[in-house]
Amino acid sequence: MCGLPSNVYLKEVGPRDGLQNEQKWISTEDKVTWINMLSKTGVSEIEYSSFVHPKMIPALKDAREVGKRINREKGVVYSALVPNMKGLEHALEAGIDGASVFMSASETHNLKNINKRIPETYPILTEVIKEAKNAGKIVTGYVSTVFDCPYEGRIAVEDVLSVCDQLIESGVDYLSLGDTIGTAVPTQVEKLLKGLFPYFPKDKLILHFHDTRGMAIANIMTALHMGITRFDSTIGGLGGCPYAPGAAGNVATNDVLYLLNGLGIETGINEKRIQEASIYIQNKLGKTLPSRSVAYLKNA
Amino acid sequence: MCGLPSNVYLKEVGPRDGLQNEQKWISTEDKVTWINMLSKTGVSEIEYSSFVHPKMIPALKDAREVGKRINREKGVVYSALVPNMKGLEHALEAGIDGASVFMSASETHNLKNINKRIPETYPILTEVIKEAKNAGKIVTGYVSTVFDCPYEGRIAVEDVLSVCDQLIESGVDYLSLGDTIGTAVPTQVEKLLKGLFPYFPKDKLILHFHDTRGMAIANIMTALHMGITRFDSTIGGLGGCPYAPGAAGNVATNDVLYLLNGLGIETGINEKRIQEASIYIQNKLGKTLPSRSVAYLKNA
Repeated sequence: MCGLPSNVYLKEVGPRDGLQNEQKWISTEDKVTWINMLSKTGVSEIEYSSFVHPKMIPALKDAREVGKRINREKGVVYSALVPNMKGLEHALEAGIDGASVFMSASETHNLKNINKRIPETYPILTEVIKEAKNAGKIVTGYVSTVFDCPYEGRIAVEDVLSVCDQLIESGVDYLSLGDTIGTAVPTQVEKLLKGLFPYFPKDKLILHFHDTRGMAIANIMTALHMGITRFDSTIGGLGGCPYAPGAAGNVATNDVLYLLNGLGIETGINEKRIQEASIYIQNKLGKTLPSRSVAYLKNA
Repeated sequence: MCGLPSNVYLKEVGPRDGLQNEQKWISTEDKVTWINMLSKTGVSEIEYSSFVHPKMIPALKDAREVGKRINREKGVVYSALVPNMKGLEHALEAGIDGASVFMSASETHNLKNINKRIPETYPILTEVIKEAKNAGKIVTGYVSTVFDCPYEGRIAVEDVLSVCDQLIESGVDYLSLGDTIGTAVPTQVEKLLKGLFPYFPKDKLILHFHDTRGMAIANIMTALHMGITRFDSTIGGLGGCPYAPGAAGNVATNDVLYLLNGLGIETGINEKRIQEASIYIQNKLGKTLPSRSVAYLKNA
């Protein structure tokens, strides 16, 4: 445990991780309007879509058009999920500052999610990472189920370490460690980070929490105390994971922001604009978003 | 920051703090059935009702009958809120192990909540505390708005200290420090506890969080690290505060339990029975309770 950082970098993953598991189709025009609103919030990075095959995630089948139509705000990093060379090609065409590849620390989750065993996944990602780096892009490696897997249970720190090692070896700039099913408690965060710190600089590690059991804010607090300064979050807490049964959406950007503001940690984000962007997508989805802050500020 | 405690004492305040702000009337029979279910969960204490004037909190106007009809489980402490001598008389008649008096660290909140200024409140409470102690009861002093007040904003640690001092002086066994409007972040918890620790033993302090902005679990985590071992919580997170606009219910017992189980901290509580008692009251209230765990386990 050390002091708290003075600044935090928030990556808004709502347009990707949020929307990919929502049932309701959001039109390309509404997505573009919404992402343009997000661009004005002051958030550091926006993962604006996923370039996986449209059949896999129909909700994001318009990734190319979204990428071409959104306004790029100066100072905001625009990234997208890319599963393979075809996805990267489309993403580069649509315009990205960052490419995110993904795999799982759990063999079974990896198999269910991307239909490949872990060792078979490396060569594919390595090619993508290399090509993205050649194109001058920032590359993030998402590692799913770093704490618990819905199929395998508790995941050993060594398994996470091994996947992280390979990804860094392949050239990723950042590792985003995912509590995919939202089951971790702060002592698990502490244990994992202690296991990774001897091998990776803290500023290369991003934490990505889902909030299934309401533990995400406490987990972020622990990570902040341990010197982590990058987090993924989703406006209003929308989303989930189609391949992790029962999992809820990411921790809400609104709640993370409330925490960070309260702690006096700078994010550059305007809370009012976050609320406006939350209400916009809440209305489009036609359902109440899980963030307590959205409901609170709406009724205040 | 120190290690984590091995045991935690949870006081279930759902039948009092939870129900007092719910609009829907729960019949005496249903309350009794529900409290009997709570008694079988393994929770350390149940605050079963409030003996304030029925006009003030109509939802709990049957406190006397509830107290007389519930089964008393061995090892469970049954307590109730008592505002004055009349309330205490009724509570003693109905049967209590513990009496809880209450006031606010904020002058304005105290005035709005109990229609008295802080200095005028002490003599009334002192008489109740003395009488309850004479009757051999455990006495807890609730101190509301210890972090922030909806009318006065940030509350100074000195103001909390002063109220706590008077209550301890008057003979209370425990102080329950309330984040009445659920706005605190972990650094506020740390600051307040550091301010109180030189004057009061840690094991006399209870923390009572509302979860308006989703910070309660992180706040509890901080308090645990600082050696606090007693917390108030409410099944499913039901409730609120009629005199603190916008405030949400207490932190959900279900979520606290998930945290504590994950940390390996013993509570003696059976998670399945907590879920059953949550579903029971959720059905009676006819609305979804805010705890993420209730929804998660119901769908699992």
